[in-house]
Amino acid sequence: MSGRPAVVLLSGGLDSTTVLGIALAEGFAAYALTFDYGQRHRLELERAAEIAAVLGAAEHRVVRVDLGRFGGSALTDEIEVPKHRTDFSGIPPTYVPARNTVFLSLALAWAEVLDARDLFLGVNALDYSGYPDCRPEFVAAFERLANVATRAGVEGERPFRIHAPLMRLGKADIVRKAAELGIDLANTLSCYDPSPRGEPCGACDACLLRAKGFAEAGVPDPALAPARLDRERRGAGPGESRGT
Amino acid sequence: MSGRPAVVLLSGGLDSTTVLGIALAEGFAAYALTFDYGQRHRLELERAAEIAAVLGAAEHRVVRVDLGRFGGSALTDEIEVPKHRTDFSGIPPTYVPARNTVFLSLALAWAEVLDARDLFLGVNALDYSGYPDCRPEFVAAFERLANVATRAGVEGERPFRIHAPLMRLGKADIVRKAAELGIDLANTLSCYDPSPRGEPCGACDACLLRAKGFAEAGVPDPALAPARLDRERRGAGPGESRGT
Repeated sequence: MSGRPAVVLLSGGLDSTTVLGIALAEGFAAYALTFDYGQRHRLELERAAEIAAVLGAAEHRVVRVDLGRFGGSALTDEIEVPKHRTDFSGIPPTYVPARNTVFLSLALAWAEVLDARDLFLGVNALDYSGYPDCRPEFVAAFERLANVATRAGVEGERPFRIHAPLMRLGKADIVRKAAELGIDLANTLSCYDPSPRGEPCGACDACLLRAKGFAEAGVPDPALAPARLDRERRGAGPGESRGT
Repeated sequence: MSGRPAVVLLSGGLDSTTVLGIALAEGFAAYALTFDYGQRHRLELERAAEIAAVLGAAEHRVVRVDLGRFGGSALTDEIEVPKHRTDFSGIPPTYVPARNTVFLSLALAWAEVLDARDLFLGVNALDYSGYPDCRPEFVAAFERLANVATRAGVEGERPFRIHAPLMRLGKADIVRKAAELGIDLANTLSCYDPSPRGEPCGACDACLLRAKGFAEAGVPDPALAPARLDRERRGAGPGESRGT
């Protein structure tokens, strides 16, 4: 872990885990950042810690930011997570207002302290259709902002760069990319509404898109491997999950 | 309070209090937002609540965001607050990395939930010289970002507007503006390093600039009025402080 530092947003899902693997494969010392933002299920936080350790992040931090305080989303509020949707057009109720703006802002704060100029996030072509803050325009606008909002912007030698390496990829492409780089996806959790033990519901948008992606790529989903699910049912802690 | 909603960043200092007064004078229903971001002195939070009540904000929220977790600033860290400075060029150690970016992002999240399109913040020409995220370029870049980062940006009828009404004003101009609008500044606290009772140190950059501003405007600083200081020495709570 001796490369240039980069801050990587890590939710513990398939996309951000793949992005962490890409940042490491590109030789960055990856500082993984996970948010405790009032999401309804907090398993994400444990999974992110496991993933950061297994993949070899230089450091992993969980930062609390109270987005749930504002409400307005099925992920932080009492709004119901939609199931078995087939039409993915429009902005879904799982959209959290300004979430990626808030997350990138905090990543920028950490990057400035670390003297890092590279930020990685896992937005991709599929999200693009529904979430305003997953579009290329958003990433470009944030990059411009970063370069006027900070010491680096004023002093100006090395500009910030926001990396969104999955932007043009669909879920199957992401699964293939992870397989190609040998990224361990066993601990990833994409489901918006898992059981208390972390079993995916299989019916929310995230589960449906993930299943379709693995199927199209012709790769079995390691998070659904019998050993992984059995461990969840036994309630094994993160300590036991390393190296699976 | 029946105007269009606007989110106003309120730290409890002279500048943001004046901005709250301006937003109200312009007819907005002001939703005041204060951050508990790990700052070393927390009196700001009490003062902001008093100010929001006295001036007549529609609502006041304090949101916790753990910027202190990243370090790198005299305001959140063990770095010493500089005293009796005379040269204000360069970025001072009280700069908090990416602070205004983080604060505006969270204001944007609340604005989206409130269906507000107006955000107010108290950056001004003096801060401009030292803090990268107090410059007009920063405000313009954030406004562009807001309009691609949100539902409003995608659906696009009414764009976001970031108001920085103090941008071109010096401290004396701000004091004059507040006096002209009859804004009560008695509860404002600008000091970076106050006593536990809220008495300003009189020597940090914020105290020096504030004193100079009041002196140049020829207005006495109401926060230094004997009655106000006496109340602090008695340790009166916010309840008693209304309407002074």
